[in-house]
Amino acid sequence: MKNFISAADVPDIPGLVKKALECKANPFKAKSLGAGKRIGLLFLNPSMRTRLSTQLAAQNLGMEAIVFNVGQDGWALEFEDEAIMSGNTVEHVKDAAPILGNYFDVLGIRTFPSLQNKVDDYSELYINQFIKYAGIPVVSLESATLHPLQSLTDVITIMENFDTAKRRPKIVLSWAPHVKALPQCVANSFSQWINAWGGADFVITHPEDYELDERFTKGATIVTDQSEALKQADFVYVKNWSTYTDYGRIYCNDPQWMLTNQKLALTNNAKVMHCLPVRRNVELSDEILDGPNSVVTQQASNRVWAAQAVLSEILKEKH
Amino acid sequence: MKNFISAADVPDIPGLVKKALECKANPFKAKSLGAGKRIGLLFLNPSMRTRLSTQLAAQNLGMEAIVFNVGQDGWALEFEDEAIMSGNTVEHVKDAAPILGNYFDVLGIRTFPSLQNKVDDYSELYINQFIKYAGIPVVSLESATLHPLQSLTDVITIMENFDTAKRRPKIVLSWAPHVKALPQCVANSFSQWINAWGGADFVITHPEDYELDERFTKGATIVTDQSEALKQADFVYVKNWSTYTDYGRIYCNDPQWMLTNQKLALTNNAKVMHCLPVRRNVELSDEILDGPNSVVTQQASNRVWAAQAVLSEILKEKH
Amino acid sequence: MKNFISAADVPDIPGLVKKALECKANPFKAKSLGAGKRIGLLFLNPSMRTRLSTQLAAQNLGMEAIVFNVGQDGWALEFEDEAIMSGNTVEHVKDAAPILGNYFDVLGIRTFPSLQNKVDDYSELYINQFIKYAGIPVVSLESATLHPLQSLTDVITIMENFDTAKRRPKIVLSWAPHVKALPQCVANSFSQWINAWGGADFVITHPEDYELDERFTKGATIVTDQSEALKQADFVYVKNWSTYTDYGRIYCNDPQWMLTNQKLALTNNAKVMHCLPVRRNVELSDEILDGPNSVVTQQASNRVWAAQAVLSEILKEKH
Repeated sequence: MKNFISAADVPDIPGLVKKALECKANPFKAKSLGAGKRIGLLFLNPSMRTRLSTQLAAQNLGMEAIVFNVGQDGWALEFEDEAIMSGNTVEHVKDAAPILGNYFDVLGIRTFPSLQNKVDDYSELYINQFIKYAGIPVVSLESATLHPLQSLTDVITIMENFDTAKRRPKIVLSWAPHVKALPQCVANSFSQWINAWGGADFVITHPEDYELDERFTKGATIVTDQSEALKQADFVYVKNWSTYTDYGRIYCNDPQWMLTNQKLALTNNAKVMHCLPVRRNVELSDEILDGPNSVVTQQASNRVWAAQAVLSEILKEKH
Repeated sequence: MKNFISAADVPDIPGLVKKALECKANPFKAKSLGAGKRIGLLFLNPSMRTRLSTQLAAQNLGMEAIVFNVGQDGWALEFEDEAIMSGNTVEHVKDAAPILGNYFDVLGIRTFPSLQNKVDDYSELYINQFIKYAGIPVVSLESATLHPLQSLTDVITIMENFDTAKRRPKIVLSWAPHVKALPQCVANSFSQWINAWGGADFVITHPEDYELDERFTKGATIVTDQSEALKQADFVYVKNWSTYTDYGRIYCNDPQWMLTNQKLALTNNAKVMHCLPVRRNVELSDEILDGPNSVVTQQASNRVWAAQAVLSEILKEKH
Repeated sequence: MKNFISAADVPDIPGLVKKALECKANPFKAKSLGAGKRIGLLFLNPSMRTRLSTQLAAQNLGMEAIVFNVGQDGWALEFEDEAIMSGNTVEHVKDAAPILGNYFDVLGIRTFPSLQNKVDDYSELYINQFIKYAGIPVVSLESATLHPLQSLTDVITIMENFDTAKRRPKIVLSWAPHVKALPQCVANSFSQWINAWGGADFVITHPEDYELDERFTKGATIVTDQSEALKQADFVYVKNWSTYTDYGRIYCNDPQWMLTNQKLALTNNAKVMHCLPVRRNVELSDEILDGPNSVVTQQASNRVWAAQAVLSEILKEKH
């Protein structure tokens, strides 16, 4: 594995999950693998779980992790080729990335979409420019359209909670209300990974006008009747996203879409997932989050093992 | 010691001071105690001395310390139960704390009072919610009403400067003017610790209307005549605080309350203490801070050994 | 070497360059030199390259590096003696520095000039107050008037690209346009180091009114005809600075001063240098930065070895 940007970078998803569970069982086993190696964690947008879990994963492997919060340090990067930089940007990625490539062995980058311009966001210009110019492996800490460390975590958590050797689980990605227009990243990425994994019956449910990009959802069953979708589900992944077609908007914010125990009764005693942070009693009710079906803490905790498995694979390739 | 939130968590104050002085004499002696352990340092409010001294203490014990500045990273937490989170808060402590509890072995938390609502501040909701939901030892890096790492440092510094085997020192906590309304934390906490330690004659002096919460001061002699209070003092602890009864106000800002050499002449050549940062020539005069009686640098430097003693005790309990 | 503030602190510039190149050849050779030692990196102004390269250098030597961004943490320092601190500053350097001196073994400090008051800026009050009160070696991470780690890097890069045993290179420092009024630090410092080194024919070219402080430039040939200056140059160091005499202004912003391939044709196939960040197509054209003559990435990467050589010398002295 050279870069880790999308499911397409992973030749063997169940193998990577197995690796992550080995890390979880024995966190310090490969403490020497990363000795003398550094990962730079560059946050163009803020992060809590991703930052901490990646730092911990790096430490478990004996790597040094150095965090750099771009926004806070007033380091406005330019990404457009041939720009005449007489405005607010102070440094071009063409100049910054090669230096980071010399300072570090692996580069982690977080960037968000603008939600203003679909073509720009979906071109993944920012992370692709870093890949092009850094010359070292790049790990997405969430990009404009995808969040692969989250999705690997999600598959790990599903496999921990379900014996896939017995039968295929039914997994439902269920849109939830929110107060802000959010990226499609987590939903795109979860769809991409579940489809690439291929081990589940996968249903996506959302209000009309909230369809996601087919490049990620192709293979899933898409329905706009949430109750129908939830029937016999083994896992319900709850997540808000803003519209993709007419880009970055909130068309519907129907509170009826919030998952409650009443709706959970339609499922096969489903485990409830969410990437966090979650707006309680907007996206998900207290009764669900505080109840026995929620696996959100387990899921967030697995972020460490997902990151550790990915860094392990990248470090091995470099050896 | 499970948590370190107040003097009540410490069964043996002189024993903990002894431990701190052992750390000072030999900082790296227990370098293996914290190997493979992590402390998360969560700052809901900014910090210099507390952050640095706790990082150094953790490193001395071989622990990894990871700092997280909540405000800067735009991570607005919700602390109210059953909140409908459609406002500015993005994550509930009920969801955040258990994850931090899985990521780390010990959690340090700094939070400040609002100074708007006494009941809320004095309920210590923030730090108590973290204790309730994190499931790991919590160390206060200053909370709404107390600052126990500072107070332990203060007792260490007193013991270094006075032979308590010979006689009981007279310690005076003396209110000082300031330009802003400050918390009562340091004054509350110092009072609590000196009373709990019980090894001194303890006097608190402040202008009328500045009385502190009796839960912390009970046992001390309280006088509003500063000159009277200072007589024959062995230590003068200078500190501003805002009003407690009519909460969070500045009633008096009389510059006469600033400690000067003239007032110091009333004491028994007292050592002068302050937790820092100090507003020079507002709280304390240059002549005092630059003179031979000030122990403020020694005091601030002892913060490392206070933190190291506390972390040692917590790590030992976990073993 | 006790402090590292200017070329005057370095008894043997070629020796220090040699040391840096040894670090580059074998980064972890002196991994035990810094064991148990700490460097505090205090940023009164933000930084990317300087922060990262100094962290990496410290790690290579086995030191712990702790970063503290003063501005972000709202820690407004007072530097004036006898100040009555009733305004915005919360702590005096006289109180802060000694504590940092007790917490750390070496202190790195970045501060910028105001560009408002030449006498104040050129007095280097901030860094000098830290040197006066910290009591430990201080390393400039760029000060109001100088940037010695950058200049050492520059000399390293020149020596890597030119066989000075054969003949003296011609080095031209060439003013460039910019959209903002920038400090004179890099230009002052480069001039000081090239003059102190003495191994080159040194020419400075800039528009009228942009002369630098003679204390740094004395020994260089100064011309206002850029084309004349560039003739047969082996190195062109491109950098903007604001006016020194009539302080902190932009008198000329003539785009003709931007280096292009056409101008480069006047040189002896010169290597082009810049300290970064660079405003593309304002200070330097894409064609130069993306062409074979640019050594800006090599230069920025050498920052690690410059910092490591300096820290090595300081640590050796402490042993």
